[in-house]
Amino acid sequence: MKIELEQVSPHEIEKRSFEIITEELNGRTFPEDQELVVKRCIHTSADFDYADNLCFSEHAVAKGIEAIREGACIVTDTQMARSGINKKVLARHGGEALCFMSDEDVAARAKETGSTRAAACMEKAAELDKKLIIAVGNAPTALVRLYELIGEGKIKPALIIGVPVGFVNVVQSKELIMQTNIPYIVARGRKGGSNIAACICNALLYMMDQDRGY
Amino acid sequence: MKIELEQVSPHEIEKRSFEIITEELNGRTFPEDQELVVKRCIHTSADFDYADNLCFSEHAVAKGIEAIREGACIVTDTQMARSGINKKVLARHGGEALCFMSDEDVAARAKETGSTRAAACMEKAAELDKKLIIAVGNAPTALVRLYELIGEGKIKPALIIGVPVGFVNVVQSKELIMQTNIPYIVARGRKGGSNIAACICNALLYMMDQDRGY
Repeated sequence: MKIELEQVSPHEIEKRSFEIITEELNGRTFPEDQELVVKRCIHTSADFDYADNLCFSEHAVAKGIEAIREGACIVTDTQMARSGINKKVLARHGGEALCFMSDEDVAARAKETGSTRAAACMEKAAELDKKLIIAVGNAPTALVRLYELIGEGKIKPALIIGVPVGFVNVVQSKELIMQTNIPYIVARGRKGGSNIAACICNALLYMMDQDRGY
Repeated sequence: MKIELEQVSPHEIEKRSFEIITEELNGRTFPEDQELVVKRCIHTSADFDYADNLCFSEHAVAKGIEAIREGACIVTDTQMARSGINKKVLARHGGEALCFMSDEDVAARAKETGSTRAAACMEKAAELDKKLIIAVGNAPTALVRLYELIGEGKIKPALIIGVPVGFVNVVQSKELIMQTNIPYIVARGRKGGSNIAACICNALLYMMDQDRGY
């Protein structure tokens, strides 16, 4: 079988990808602030389900961007999500990407409380005296603990990116977050992932970078 | 709305997830060596498309495991994929996970040749005097260059994990790899990702770890 490659120069690949995504969305429109987030998630996963499952609280994108502009740090629940975030652009605004999953005190805390390390990470985040965006791409237990900490008044993130993936309490953990009064971007249902968490963070960073007026 | 959480202890979550995946696969069976790879990809993405799109060359899983046992290194095309690989288990067998995407010589080489950094990474990998597994989760340009290097006799990986994601030459790059005589695990079509690349590596590592007889 002869395989024909499309001739696209390296710096045009992303642009061409977004054109294909737009074509295949077949005229479907999104609120202007949400469009790039939705399309980047589809770009990252080749999964058009993100056109339907992403839920945004009011002005979530603007609030996330404002927080980054004010130097917010992004706390992730996996090293993989942290690794995927464009930390150079984030640093330009004074923020950094943090993940506590490999920290010894987090392992000890999880063991002590019979919880997961991801949940213990949220407790550690609650002890930081910083403006925070929490990006959960893996562990629903992190989102559930975050929900409890919010209820106890121990943490008040500027934005929650709630996109854990999987089969046990994933759906529920996202619904809990959507019941708080904290701004959120959530992928309703089972889907998500560390790649999606990083991708949503990058969508916000790139909107700022491109001076799109947010 | 009252949200009911399923009561599952931290160390049972993965087991319970795999039970749900097995249930929803509804009696569908896979070759024994491929089953864990397929289920881990579904576990990582909550996307049952991986039950259909994963393609394995003959004995690909056994060949990958043999390579790791012989100390093979895993070269990825993103830091994110490298970050997701269980490097402790890999190190137990003498291997390490490598990603050259942030290397200055790779950036220079890409600029010089008008190619992508991901393609330049494959050239750098071809210069290593090591047994290699190449895991591509992002850039089809890496797979295309890898295909060319194989044709030129410059690299002969023990296994290719070919799961780039996206819209431009992604489908084609995977078909090219499946035309080589190199063992492969490929997610046919557009889907894949750094998370999927890491997940397939970990599936191999965990099969070895659990002494499943490979």
